[in-house]
Parts: sequence; C-alpha cells; structure tokens
Amino acid sequence: MANSIYRASILQSYSQLLFQPCLSNKHCVPKKTNLLCFASSQLNPARSEVSFCIGTHLIPHPNKVERGGEDAFFVSNFKGGVIAVADGVSGWAEQNVDPSLFSKELMANASSLVGNLEVNYDPQILIRKAHAATCSKGSATAIVAMLERNGTMKVASVGDCGLRVIRKGQIIFSTTPQEHYFDCPYQLSSELVGQTYLDAVVSSVELVEGDTIVMGSDGLFDNVFDGEIVSTLAAHSDVVEAGFRCSFLEENSGDEANRWKA
Amino acid sequence: MANSIYRASILQSYSQLLFQPCLSNKHCVPKKTNLLCFASSQLNPARSEVSFCIGTHLIPHPNKVERGGEDAFFVSNFKGGVIAVADGVSGWAEQNVDPSLFSKELMANASSLVGNLEVNYDPQILIRKAHAATCSKGSATAIVAMLERNGTMKVASVGDCGLRVIRKGQIIFSTTPQEHYFDCPYQLSSELVGQTYLDAVVSSVELVEGDTIVMGSDGLFDNVFDGEIVSTLAAHSDVVEAGFRCSFLEENSGDEANRWKA
Repeated sequence: MANSIYRASILQSYSQLLFQPCLSNKHCVPKKTNLLCFASSQLNPARSEVSFCIGTHLIPHPNKVERGGEDAFFVSNFKGGVIAVADGVSGWAEQNVDPSLFSKELMANASSLVGNLEVNYDPQILIRKAHAATCSKGSATAIVAMLERNGTMKVASVGDCGLRVIRKGQIIFSTTPQEHYFDCPYQLSSELVGQTYLDAVVSSVELVEGDTIVMGSDGLFDNVFDGEIVSTLAAHSDVVEAGFRCSFLEENSGDEANRWKA
Repeated sequence: MANSIYRASILQSYSQLLFQPCLSNKHCVPKKTNLLCFASSQLNPARSEVSFCIGTHLIPHPNKVERGGEDAFFVSNFKGGVIAVADGVSGWAEQNVDPSLFSKELMANASSLVGNLEVNYDPQILIRKAHAATCSKGSATAIVAMLERNGTMKVASVGDCGLRVIRKGQIIFSTTPQEHYFDCPYQLSSELVGQTYLDAVVSSVELVEGDTIVMGSDGLFDNVFDGEIVSTLAAHSDVVEAGFRCSFLEENSGDEANRWKA
C-alpha cells in the first residue's frame, strides 16, 4: 500500500498552483481522497483574518488502485481558502463507465470556477456551474467548503461526503449525509434522474483560530469513528501527520467487508 | 403525567404575545422543554419569504414536577421567527439554589432583547446580552435560532441543547453538544468559571419550504433516537401532534436510569 499513499503538504500560496495543472490534464487530479485535514490559522492578527493550513491524504480502494480510485479533490487559496471533495459513484462500472471520470471532471471544473464572478464565492453556485460544465458520463457526491477571511466557512454538500470541525478536542460541527436508501447517496449525475445543486444542504459555521476541519468522502467517515478522528488529531499538531495517521486507522479498521466501503 | 403536559399551538402572530407576559412574571415561563417542533412555511410565494409554524411540548422531569422542571424557552415572530431553549443545570440544587431560576431569567431576557438594535438579529449577541442581564444565581445551557425571511436560519448554542433540521424524511443538519466531560456541559453561568457567548458554536443553514426543525434540551436528544424523531415526524403533518408523540416516546424510552436524563 505504501506506494499508493499520496501525501501533500500544501502551503497556502502553492495550493492553487498544485491543482492548476489538473485543468489541462485531468488524470493528474488525485484519485482517492480518504482524508483532508485543514486547520484555520490567524495569518494577520491585526486584521483578524483567517485562512487554512492544509494537509491532504489519499488512498485508493485496494480494488481500484489500478485506475487510481474514484475520488477527486481540489484546494485553492482564493480568499480564505476553498476545499472540495467528490466521490465517483461505483455503480457506473457495471455499465463499463469509469466512475472516476465524472468526479475528476467535476472537481477540475470547480477548481477553474472558484474565482468566477457569477459564482460569487458561493459553494452552492460553484457546484451548479461545475456540474453544468461536465461532459463525462457518470455521477458523484460532492462537498465544497469556502472560508471567508472573517472566519465564516460556507459549506454545500450533495450526498455522503462529509466535514467535521474540531475545536478544543471536540467536534463542534458536522455535516449529515443524504441518501435515497442504504448505499445510494444523493448524487450529481450526467443523467436527468440525478440531483442538482438545488438538493445541496447549504450551511455555514463560524471558525476561530486553531479549529481543525476534516473533510473526506464516506470512505473516511464510514470506516473511522469520529472519536478516533478527534483522538488522532489531538496527538498531532501537524495536519499532514494527522492525516497520515487517520488514513492508517482507516486501513486497519473493521473487517474486510467494511474496511474499504467506497 | 397528563396534567404536567403543556401543549401550545402558536400561530406566528401570537407567539410574541404568548411570551411577553413572562417578562413581568417569570414563573409563567414554561418549565421543562423536552421538544419544540418547527416547520418552515412559505407565507408569501411571490416574495419567497419563509417563517415558522410552531408547535411546542413540555414535560417536567418526574422528580422536578413540583417546581415545574428546570428548562425554559421562548418563541418570537420577530422577522422570520426566533426560537430558543435553555436548560438549568441541576447541580445547583445541591447548593440550595433553584436551578430553574437562571434558565427562566435567561430566556425572559432573551425574549425582551430580540428586537434590540445592538443584537442586530444575531443569536450569539442575543446570548451575550441576555446572559449579561441575568441576576439569578445558577447556570444553564442555551440554544437560539433566528430565521431570516430569505430562509437562512442562524444558530448559536452553548452546551448540550440541540437542534435538528429534517428535510424529505432525513436529518440534513444537526448541532453537536459541547461538554467538559460526561454530564458536564458547557454552560452560561452566574459565576466567572462558566462559559460565555464567545464559547458558543455559531452556525447557519439554508432552509427550504417544508423543512421541519426540532429543538430541545438534552432531555429530548438523550432519550429519543434521531431515527425515532424522523419517523414520528413522518407520521404527523401537524407539528403539535408530532411534538406530543415525540414526548410520549421520551416518556417510554429506555430504563428508568436513562429515561429522564436532565
């Protein structure tokens, strides 16, 4: 598994650069996002502005290593910072459609649209425009969080990707997954039967300096208990290291059947 | 138990009136809030404005019936509507302090301050000013939710009161309790050692027509599973009836030790 582990410590000023190449070469978008760890930091105390310090960690599902998994993400340093995860719906493989194409395209579109005037730094509108611009066949769950410099983090989510905010060793904010029935999440789709940005749950939370944000696909939250995430973060001041440890927990959690729930 | 059950169907235009008398006679503030059910409704489709339809239900803890319990709440029709619950911390009884006095005064203060210009329709500031105006000895957990006419519901919470938003039969938004350790929640206090409005978790969620909001003290959420709340709401189109059913579930949930966790 070691060679399939992708770790990136992304400084704020480099985060946009890291993902810009993905716009011209979609295959470079990271494939499986099991965990993104973010911590807000006060960069300019005089102006009380906050932004993210970011660490990411990715492990493809063992059965999907060849194609690199079905997830994609992007981060951006636009304004306070933008973070997003999409999870391609596996069922498309039964129709000989690579489930990763739609999620990758969705995140590539979103990455390119972050600064769009019509998006107006609204995560729900970003989802709408990124979805509308997709050409691939498939579907994906998606979550987008946008941090404003004043500490307000706006979140829009369709499906069962998730986000937790940890403050002083406690989860103080969680998103809630949406699903039609077990293992069938709400999803943005190339087909008319899917959901749209109008089905997104749109929420926001006021962050304070030192808060840690964990965002991931259901591959993380279905396999690692919230308490394990909190205790892992407590033992690591560095979000990249914490991400690595959480991913290790995920690899070793539960029996084989539940270990890699996609 | 029948005579201890308080039920009120509050039309929007009457909700303020219902609680205004509490400002002059604090003992009329309802004592134990196990459940508040709220459903957003689109009153004026042309302007897409939303407001609450409100039902409430209250049951004092069996050991606290004489004093009427330790909780208090208020609702207001100011702007889209304001709803709030406070839960007096039981431990004060050991110091011969009636735990209900602080929560009642906190809610009475908040009710009178809803339209205050300095509050500026901000639930965290409402908590700050209501707390600052208390004179009683004691402490309480508290949650305040304010609905704007455009559908944004802002929430501020200190401690383990809670709120759920149910949409199309699913919980799409939940608050998360804060506690120092088991059974010791964050709390607004008459003493310096307590928490303040700065410790509040401040969040918001975009509501749509037909959403149902359930707010209550931990007395509800510790005794009734989220799934039971959802299934109860699904069986009742009327929020008052649903509230009654949820309270009935609470009365009959678990063994005696867990049945009435205050």
